Amino acid sequence: MCGVVGIFGHPEASTLAYLSLYALQHRGQESAGIVTTDGDTLIRHAGMGLVADVFSRDVLSALPGNAAIGHVRYSTAGDSHRSNAQPFLLRHHRGPIAIAHNGNLVNAALIREELEAGGSIFQTTSDTEVVLHLAARTPVADIVDALAESLRHLRGAYSLVAVVPGRLIAARDPLGFRPLSVGRVDGAWVIASESCAFDLLGAEYVRDVERGEVVVADVGGLHSFKPFEDDRPAPCLFEHVYFARPDSRVFGESVQAVRKRLGAQLWEEQPADAEVVTPVPDSGMYAAMGYAHAAGLPFEMGLVRNHYIGRTFIEPSQQIRNFGVRIKLNPVREILAGRRVALIDDSIVRGTTSRKIVQLCRDAGAKEVHVRVSSPPTRGSCRYGIDTPVAEELVAARHGVEEIRSFLGADSLGYLSMEGMLRAAQKEGDDVCSACWSNEQPVKLPRADTRQLGLFDKTVR
Amino acid sequence: MCGVVGIFGHPEASTLAYLSLYALQHRGQESAGIVTTDGDTLIRHAGMGLVADVFSRDVLSALPGNAAIGHVRYSTAGDSHRSNAQPFLLRHHRGPIAIAHNGNLVNAALIREELEAGGSIFQTTSDTEVVLHLAARTPVADIVDALAESLRHLRGAYSLVAVVPGRLIAARDPLGFRPLSVGRVDGAWVIASESCAFDLLGAEYVRDVERGEVVVADVGGLHSFKPFEDDRPAPCLFEHVYFARPDSRVFGESVQAVRKRLGAQLWEEQPADAEVVTPVPDSGMYAAMGYAHAAGLPFEMGLVRNHYIGRTFIEPSQQIRNFGVRIKLNPVREILAGRRVALIDDSIVRGTTSRKIVQLCRDAGAKEVHVRVSSPPTRGSCRYGIDTPVAEELVAARHGVEEIRSFLGADSLGYLSMEGMLRAAQKEGDDVCSACWSNEQPVKLPRADTRQLGLFDKTVR
Amino acid sequence: MCGVVGIFGHPEASTLAYLSLYALQHRGQESAGIVTTDGDTLIRHAGMGLVADVFSRDVLSALPGNAAIGHVRYSTAGDSHRSNAQPFLLRHHRGPIAIAHNGNLVNAALIREELEAGGSIFQTTSDTEVVLHLAARTPVADIVDALAESLRHLRGAYSLVAVVPGRLIAARDPLGFRPLSVGRVDGAWVIASESCAFDLLGAEYVRDVERGEVVVADVGGLHSFKPFEDDRPAPCLFEHVYFARPDSRVFGESVQAVRKRLGAQLWEEQPADAEVVTPVPDSGMYAAMGYAHAAGLPFEMGLVRNHYIGRTFIEPSQQIRNFGVRIKLNPVREILAGRRVALIDDSIVRGTTSRKIVQLCRDAGAKEVHVRVSSPPTRGSCRYGIDTPVAEELVAARHGVEEIRSFLGADSLGYLSMEGMLRAAQKEGDDVCSACWSNEQPVKLPRADTRQLGLFDKTVR
Amino acid sequence: MCGVVGIFGHPEASTLAYLSLYALQHRGQESAGIVTTDGDTLIRHAGMGLVADVFSRDVLSALPGNAAIGHVRYSTAGDSHRSNAQPFLLRHHRGPIAIAHNGNLVNAALIREELEAGGSIFQTTSDTEVVLHLAARTPVADIVDALAESLRHLRGAYSLVAVVPGRLIAARDPLGFRPLSVGRVDGAWVIASESCAFDLLGAEYVRDVERGEVVVADVGGLHSFKPFEDDRPAPCLFEHVYFARPDSRVFGESVQAVRKRLGAQLWEEQPADAEVVTPVPDSGMYAAMGYAHAAGLPFEMGLVRNHYIGRTFIEPSQQIRNFGVRIKLNPVREILAGRRVALIDDSIVRGTTSRKIVQLCRDAGAKEVHVRVSSPPTRGSCRYGIDTPVAEELVAARHGVEEIRSFLGADSLGYLSMEGMLRAAQKEGDDVCSACWSNEQPVKLPRADTRQLGLFDKTVR
Repeated sequence: MCGVVGIFGHPEASTLAYLSLYALQHRGQESAGIVTTDGDTLIRHAGMGLVADVFSRDVLSALPGNAAIGHVRYSTAGDSHRSNAQPFLLRHHRGPIAIAHNGNLVNAALIREELEAGGSIFQTTSDTEVVLHLAARTPVADIVDALAESLRHLRGAYSLVAVVPGRLIAARDPLGFRPLSVGRVDGAWVIASESCAFDLLGAEYVRDVERGEVVVADVGGLHSFKPFEDDRPAPCLFEHVYFARPDSRVFGESVQAVRKRLGAQLWEEQPADAEVVTPVPDSGMYAAMGYAHAAGLPFEMGLVRNHYIGRTFIEPSQQIRNFGVRIKLNPVREILAGRRVALIDDSIVRGTTSRKIVQLCRDAGAKEVHVRVSSPPTRGSCRYGIDTPVAEELVAARHGVEEIRSFLGADSLGYLSMEGMLRAAQKEGDDVCSACWSNEQPVKLPRADTRQLGLFDKTVR
Repeated sequence: MCGVVGIFGHPEASTLAYLSLYALQHRGQESAGIVTTDGDTLIRHAGMGLVADVFSRDVLSALPGNAAIGHVRYSTAGDSHRSNAQPFLLRHHRGPIAIAHNGNLVNAALIREELEAGGSIFQTTSDTEVVLHLAARTPVADIVDALAESLRHLRGAYSLVAVVPGRLIAARDPLGFRPLSVGRVDGAWVIASESCAFDLLGAEYVRDVERGEVVVADVGGLHSFKPFEDDRPAPCLFEHVYFARPDSRVFGESVQAVRKRLGAQLWEEQPADAEVVTPVPDSGMYAAMGYAHAAGLPFEMGLVRNHYIGRTFIEPSQQIRNFGVRIKLNPVREILAGRRVALIDDSIVRGTTSRKIVQLCRDAGAKEVHVRVSSPPTRGSCRYGIDTPVAEELVAARHGVEEIRSFLGADSLGYLSMEGMLRAAQKEGDDVCSACWSNEQPVKLPRADTRQLGLFDKTVR
Repeated sequence: MCGVVGIFGHPEASTLAYLSLYALQHRGQESAGIVTTDGDTLIRHAGMGLVADVFSRDVLSALPGNAAIGHVRYSTAGDSHRSNAQPFLLRHHRGPIAIAHNGNLVNAALIREELEAGGSIFQTTSDTEVVLHLAARTPVADIVDALAESLRHLRGAYSLVAVVPGRLIAARDPLGFRPLSVGRVDGAWVIASESCAFDLLGAEYVRDVERGEVVVADVGGLHSFKPFEDDRPAPCLFEHVYFARPDSRVFGESVQAVRKRLGAQLWEEQPADAEVVTPVPDSGMYAAMGYAHAAGLPFEMGLVRNHYIGRTFIEPSQQIRNFGVRIKLNPVREILAGRRVALIDDSIVRGTTSRKIVQLCRDAGAKEVHVRVSSPPTRGSCRYGIDTPVAEELVAARHGVEEIRSFLGADSLGYLSMEGMLRAAQKEGDDVCSACWSNEQPVKLPRADTRQLGLFDKTVR
Repeated sequence: MCGVVGIFGHPEASTLAYLSLYALQHRGQESAGIVTTDGDTLIRHAGMGLVADVFSRDVLSALPGNAAIGHVRYSTAGDSHRSNAQPFLLRHHRGPIAIAHNGNLVNAALIREELEAGGSIFQTTSDTEVVLHLAARTPVADIVDALAESLRHLRGAYSLVAVVPGRLIAARDPLGFRPLSVGRVDGAWVIASESCAFDLLGAEYVRDVERGEVVVADVGGLHSFKPFEDDRPAPCLFEHVYFARPDSRVFGESVQAVRKRLGAQLWEEQPADAEVVTPVPDSGMYAAMGYAHAAGLPFEMGLVRNHYIGRTFIEPSQQIRNFGVRIKLNPVREILAGRRVALIDDSIVRGTTSRKIVQLCRDAGAKEVHVRVSSPPTRGSCRYGIDTPVAEELVAARHGVEEIRSFLGADSLGYLSMEGMLRAAQKEGDDVCSACWSNEQPVKLPRADTRQLGLFDKTVR
């Protein structure tokens, strides 16, 4: 996952981009970057780490201009290299361009291979660079047309922002997997992954960028294009369940309100014989409140989160039991001891952390631990930008609910149903991407043996 | 405020100290340090910043030995210098010694002046160094006796740990302002400011270090001394109200339980005509839960905290209204809009932040904002180690409740009474330090014009 | 100017490359870099600064493999960016390749423009990258053929080394501007800009890489190719006059021996009525020794060089006279005072430094200062890799000898003649590049208005 | 060895101190530091490394005031810690004071022990700190009197500078081991270890600080005190032989002139049947010139020094023969091959380096190698500030000349005699310190079993 922002028409564009990245920090903590333009050149600063570590007053002062894009990047296993930090800034024959991207392009590797065979030299391993190389080879004069043409060849999820001297460009894929919204402050345009960025800037929410829409901000205003064939909608429900900030509005809905409805629905489907409801903080917080309220049970913070943890911890070689969880969460004996506890989480991925949390609760004296999950069993790996492990590592991909309960050591285990989740989210089944639960892919993957010869007929020769 | 830890008798003493500092990080984020001993020499590493920034696996490997002390330091205005980072490590004629200290010595400046006149040369501006210079000049052979003799001359609050080759020493002042507890893990002794450090290590809580007690851990076990004249108890109630971690036990009580009782008592004394109860996160959390439960009103997170904020933020020159609060807290319109809100905080210091939070709630559409505070008005600056501003800056030192309400822009304002606070904390009035509310000082300050000649009769000449 | 090295067939290739760069450090102090290959991938480390600053034992350990190339880069005005540090490492469709280059490609900008129009995206502003993009677009299977084809389109000076998994490649342009030699140690091949690198490694000098030769080292030995049309020889005489290390052999000659012959010839042509001969250290050292010996005059170090100077100096605002020279050179009053001094330098560029040195000598009491220069007046800017200023800044491009003498404040000034220089170097006039003295360019520059369409007929389309 | 400088009465005192340290860099490359005073407080900056690395324009700007002292420190084996970097800055009851010191105090350890027994706490392991602790305990009002009193208790070599608000203080021990001179520029006083610092500043040499003299610069001018008992003179002859810069005047003599006289005297005593004279650069340079001139033999640079070497080198595990020397010196085959060579060095310490240099010359083809040394055999370790190894490691302490020649592998070996050295230096035998050659100590060491009780009668009690 990543977060993106674009600013157009503000004398302190870099500072507004920086503050927006602060608000979007939960979408990626590995790297942060900003590119600005003064209408003539583009200037970039990016680095590994949190927004607060990467940017200083001096750095922002060295990023002048009234347009900017920014990016925060999530830590993923294989490619946490400095050179993959976004935005990317390149110069091609139309001049300089920078781009930042949230999502995942399904056929990027195949297209890259063809481009390299034609003599293109890539700088990074990121699929975002493919967009720019395709655009560089596209024989149309204007960069917006070239980008749109380039995106027509690509499949997958993208909410992207790009900047060239004088213009801010934003695009959302035809299925609309990831959120992207337009706001306005002091006459300037703000485009951001989540509305919480607008709140921090004191900006007003205007509208979402639509599925399949390209918007361009320039001195003439905000222009809209629909260059792609229409497709079905596929907003990612995990944004509501887990990923987005509770105070954001995403896909037109208040995130915390959806989470509380998921919790209430979970009580309807999976009531627990408990004396107290406690969340796995922070992500289970709102579902637990909804669950407790629907149940008429007391809501308590039976697990306290340590907010000062860094990236890595050093453990004694004589190991501490359940250390990895314990450094983040501390059970409160006074709340848990001797009681029947409903423990609410948003999802179970590998199950290993949940198992340790159940154990922590028991060590603190809980009489019974009833685990309740505010989404269905996670069975598939995400191909559209969420960093879930491969399917083999997902406990629900290979085990039934009773097996999982036994693995967790819980007294009972209940998941929300797919129908219940859709009802709480007020969606229909074919209006969303539910691939990580159902394994039904909204995008059909290209076959690996198919050379996309048509591509180079149009673009290079 | 600061946090301290001591370890004795564990082959990975530095790692245990490091983990304990992780757990105590809320007590100080400015600097962190550890000193270990291999029984022969002392080795120190300290630096500015969070525990996770200061220590790495390599650093811990370079801190061998089976005894260690550690310290985290709070940011205070005047003296955030690297050279003031604790523990202090010095060598005097008895050999090397390191010391780390939570609290404040009321007569340190006066004694330092006398020591300097006698030829002592100080390295830092910290009052902790005075303890060591006094001990160096004390003509007794053993370092524990010298430390105790040194502390007899000092007045104020101290929960301190010290280490010399072969021994861990801990001491708590005769009034017992700050907490200090003893735990045990794998046969090793752990002494820490709060019990949450024991939880992380998987250590068992044994007992508190008593007021006026010096304990020494060596290969022969844990030894206890009572070298000071007895005095009245004066545990700091602010530890319960605000400072300690909710999952700690402090002065024999569960912190979160006390906070919920404070909230319930607050409802008894200061009921609000509200539809929803919302805390100022994170410190108002448990009082708000207690308040809501006592009131039978819904508890909601109407303000969401951004946990990724760093030390400093850069704001556009064209300023954002209430920016300083907004970067930390985001109001949730869906919860607040159109409703009468009871906003629960643990204390009001200058009032400027509270005023901005009230304004945020109104901007998000709150119909009425009723501020409730789970402690009495803060009227005095702390002389015993909490970093409160000077009394002139405390809004309650110069204004009545109605004036403060008007300044905050709240519809109503209610503080918990002193009696209510004591009742919720299950204490008597002369069993605690309540100086920041009552301005009654448990320690009588020495007159500035009194040379403490007796001191140098005994030690130097 | 730059220095390059390549190693093939040694288990500690990175360490040998590193030591060679140490020996070649005088050819460039701005950046240093090494790329190694383990036969499968390429690994790169490069940074700004001296070899000793850029590389550590850990860094070298992280550069495994039995083949390596290295580069040191001279500081030039416009583009001292980290991203221009060599070697360049890129991946194209044939796999990874790294290249390092000493020289200057005269038509690189023009070819780059054409490549960009065809969709290529460049990472740097260096002309070295053009070689790789051309090779990437060349439709032949083998990388050595592709490189040779690419170089056929390029004009100018290049002594380059490249490495791909399993092979080390070196090439020298058909005119042979810059030196490049082959050595051998412990069965491994070493290719380096100057023979002083062989001395440090304990390697044996084998032969020079010839003009217009491409050599490839692989497990089968050293292979030689001559893929270019023959051209006249044009070795750069400035290598002998100033640039190369005195203990190197360059173009088949001992550098210090040539410099002493230049000094002796200078006495023949331009005898000075002096009592003592003193060099401008360090570069005038050997010519001064030759001059003094031929003249039968005493050789003295009348100017002492401070070897500890760094890159930048901070001067008081109340300026010190001739500070820039004084920080590097200190006149010795005991040697200069009251005497007629012959001051020997290798060349005069802008004249401003020479003027200050003459002044320093007079301030130290010299009775007469007779400046003698061991090369002809420098009148042209170098297009083949030496960082001389533009012609307008060269004092000899706009002024006669008497005008220069007057500007320097010298009692007399004498330059070596072109014929004398050739005689001392034992060369004929059309066997060398003398462009910086004669402005006769061995390479004819392509006209700016000529599109080199033939290029893309062959490579891209 | 170290270098010191003091500035008084210049608005850019820190910049003048910095430039002086540049000129004195050869006296110490391990650390550098400056303390300035604005007349009220003292401000310090110091760090490990060269002057150019430790100071920047920003750092100098943060060192305001019109008086300053500076220090460069030589790398010694045991205590190259950051905390030992000078100047030391301490605050005692008279206010702040900083001190920087060149030399070695022979009885510092003993006095330190007594001070610690009396309760003093030291920050460093440097003997310089003893001076300040003694002064802090001295019951006189003025700091200059206290320093003088403190120095009366100390034995050994010291050329020191100190600064307090409003005054610059300099002192040289009664025997005058190390040089210290007074200069003047723009109305300001400059006090420095060597006159080359004056040359760089454009300052005029005024006079040497005399043996046993304390000078104080303040707004009233330069004041002189002679607080110590008179003693014999003992200037260190190694300053002339090796340590000082050739362009300095030291103890009233031009260093390069003395070195050339040493070389000429060496020829008188130890003529070699050689065809060419070549120095071991850089330190043998001037003696070789004097030797060659006296002999009427050609002077040649048969060994070329690499000036870009850093502190450490990484060698292949398959070692290169004589690597440690080879990285610094490269023999020039054209000069050495087939010839009888007189190789001139200033001294032989352990002999291991000389042995490698002889081998390098032979490897380059030298027919005969005749080693000549411009000082007598080094037999004693220095107790007065030069970093010579312990006597056991000195080859001449345990071996005769023929044994050393055999060890070096030289065809002949000749040392300068003590009488010859004194004659060339124009000194008498009891006017100098010749301890490293004769082992006769000008300072009688205090016996370790003598408690210096008189000291504390006066100062502490």
